[in-house]
Amino acid sequence: MEKERFEWLSLARHMAAEAGVLIRSASESARSEGVGKEKSCSVDLVTEYDRQAEDIILSKIRDRYPDHGIISEESNPKGELKKVTWVVDPIDGTTNFIAGLPEVAVSIGIIVDGKPEVGVVYNPIRNEIFHAVRGCGAFLDDRPIRVNEGITLSQAIVCVEFGYVRTNEGAVTMLEPVRKLLNRSVRTIRMIGSGALDLCFVACGRLDAVYAGIAGEGWYPWDYAAGGLIAEEAGAKLCKVDGSEFSIFGDSVVCSSPSIVGDILEVIKPESQS
Amino acid sequence: MEKERFEWLSLARHMAAEAGVLIRSASESARSEGVGKEKSCSVDLVTEYDRQAEDIILSKIRDRYPDHGIISEESNPKGELKKVTWVVDPIDGTTNFIAGLPEVAVSIGIIVDGKPEVGVVYNPIRNEIFHAVRGCGAFLDDRPIRVNEGITLSQAIVCVEFGYVRTNEGAVTMLEPVRKLLNRSVRTIRMIGSGALDLCFVACGRLDAVYAGIAGEGWYPWDYAAGGLIAEEAGAKLCKVDGSEFSIFGDSVVCSSPSIVGDILEVIKPESQS
Repeated sequence: MEKERFEWLSLARHMAAEAGVLIRSASESARSEGVGKEKSCSVDLVTEYDRQAEDIILSKIRDRYPDHGIISEESNPKGELKKVTWVVDPIDGTTNFIAGLPEVAVSIGIIVDGKPEVGVVYNPIRNEIFHAVRGCGAFLDDRPIRVNEGITLSQAIVCVEFGYVRTNEGAVTMLEPVRKLLNRSVRTIRMIGSGALDLCFVACGRLDAVYAGIAGEGWYPWDYAAGGLIAEEAGAKLCKVDGSEFSIFGDSVVCSSPSIVGDILEVIKPESQS
Repeated sequence: MEKERFEWLSLARHMAAEAGVLIRSASESARSEGVGKEKSCSVDLVTEYDRQAEDIILSKIRDRYPDHGIISEESNPKGELKKVTWVVDPIDGTTNFIAGLPEVAVSIGIIVDGKPEVGVVYNPIRNEIFHAVRGCGAFLDDRPIRVNEGITLSQAIVCVEFGYVRTNEGAVTMLEPVRKLLNRSVRTIRMIGSGALDLCFVACGRLDAVYAGIAGEGWYPWDYAAGGLIAEEAGAKLCKVDGSEFSIFGDSVVCSSPSIVGDILEVIKPESQS
């Protein structure tokens, strides 16, 4: 599989770059058409670009690897798990893309027997590409990256995403760990709006932890498949919110610098006191 | 004053660009020295760059306008209010800068008799410059910008910043409006980490509202002076959190698309129910 993985990586990078050209140009033309346009129009706009970006990627995979499976957010979310399966989000961070916030990414993961082996996350707005191949480290623009090592919670930037949860119970569940983090003097909290980039930002030390799934925030395999591997290869600890083994098909994740994963698990536990 | 204001703008843009070169190169060298470095070291690093960037700006103001006042975060926070006063933050978003997150800005506001007349906010990492002169509109890279008009809360992205508040009472006070916003189906919440950019992002429609000062989050004149004018000139409604008239010397701000300012004031009122 050694040679194949690097061929897949090469194709994933190529496809991410090509989809990125479309996304960047869509973002620029949206801007020249007038920043601050009425939002309900641009929702349709982004759906169109999501689909176009996905077409670019999926047609190339089908052409080159007709026997591989594909799971993709827009057209094939339930997907088809084969020996080798491509897990694709053509535009991760759609709300950001619509608003003109720059944290937007193409995410392409390749899983073998259900396990991520290759991951590419490309932000076309900032022209930054994160990648990893299992066992070979993680990279940002081809430079090796590592999580922040040995930090404490008071040195940590923790990312929180509220997803689409809008019930009062869900809000209370999501906000209680934030209160505990502040109470325990976390350096700061960020909300960035792209799951794939959140994971990559932990990988390169821009963030120190991100978690999701305590109130059904709804992260999916295409949010985790590439970024999770990149974070893992950069030294991050990944698990579910109950501390058990992480899976891209699970419904929760903690991705953290190893030195604070205990703190994160503690603050997100429903029964914990602080 | 008409001619002078555009001369001040020109100098402010020039100084922001020059300080930006330093900030960008510091950011790049920090990255090539290894992303994910131990954070406590880079705190010293950033203090050094903060001061250097401030020196670049302050020396030019003193040289060109020796009779003007200067209020500046690093070396002159209490400042000296004169007829014309420059209000400077050499690096707004220091925590982001240290971590390698891109939302970092040089903020330069010019106030006459205490009232902002010119504002420049420059993000050297993304090479974006926002500016405004009172009565002449607001601009991003010289293109006119406007807030999102006529949106509802369910279409709105609201930015929240926790600042340095870490008491339990403060955390509870800050989180209650977030719960209410989620409860009222706000599109999403972001935490970006630069007050000056938060205001500019409302101006260009990337965000729809930001507020600060409900629990002593500690925004200062250099956070508001430039960005507040840019937002106002782009059509944003600015007031204090109790709805009274905004001042850059006050201790709170609501900056919002006009159509949702009532909702924002409602959710941040301590006594409000939802």
